[in-house]
Amino acid sequence: MGTDDARRSLTSARVATLATARASGEIDLVPITFAVYGNQLVSVVDHKPKTTLHLRRLKNIMNNPRVTVLAHSYDEEWDRLWWVRVRGTARIVTSGRQHHDAIRSMIAKYPQLVDPPPTGSVIIVEIDEWLGWSACQSEP
Amino acid sequence: MGTDDARRSLTSARVATLATARASGEIDLVPITFAVYGNQLVSVVDHKPKTTLHLRRLKNIMNNPRVTVLAHSYDEEWDRLWWVRVRGTARIVTSGRQHHDAIRSMIAKYPQLVDPPPTGSVIIVEIDEWLGWSACQSEP
Repeated sequence: MGTDDARRSLTSARVATLATARASGEIDLVPITFAVYGNQLVSVVDHKPKTTLHLRRLKNIMNNPRVTVLAHSYDEEWDRLWWVRVRGTARIVTSGRQHHDAIRSMIAKYPQLVDPPPTGSVIIVEIDEWLGWSACQSEP
Repeated sequence: MGTDDARRSLTSARVATLATARASGEIDLVPITFAVYGNQLVSVVDHKPKTTLHLRRLKNIMNNPRVTVLAHSYDEEWDRLWWVRVRGTARIVTSGRQHHDAIRSMIAKYPQLVDPPPTGSVIIVEIDEWLGWSACQSEP
């Protein structure tokens, strides 16, 4: 799968998995909703920003901004499997234009967020590596 | 979600995401099919063991056996979301009783593997940490 296909597949995916590293090196994984525009992937920490799990995600990024995100599709017909993996550098934004734009993108993608709109921290990932794989295009 | 529920949810999930770390600290993510018995999660590297992506996964584990695995369910009804995350120490097995048992467990779960049965390396993760989350049981 080329970068254009990878971008299309990731953009349209409804959920992905965010990987962040603890200072100890242990890897934390959590499903995220997200939006993609250009080389940015954004994800809003939801309506309950004070839970331990959300704090962990943000703390990891503050310690080590390198993150990996995977979106994939599973089907019992294994020749329909595909996945897209991106890497990038993440930052946390809590207000201002980038915060506003990220939340607007999330609401446009997820009607579940319309009312009330999220107000929490936004994770913005500057993607610098795209990798896509599709079973139907893989090597013989 | 308690450990028993987490175990049931992970065991019945059809796909999960395996996270391994490169020596550089970058995190690799890949979807895996897998089976769980007791505190072991097993995954068979499939019929094309020589591809770069499979070698990467195995190389990472040989360098750093600590892995994290996430299974989750997405639904547009967000009160149905759940995920299970496990951590453990992985090893690679290429023959013998554990290899045989792992492949047998995979075939029992995935009819796609029956013919021909896989013969490649098996990743065995000794799970030492379970964490499960369900939207319908989360804090108010």
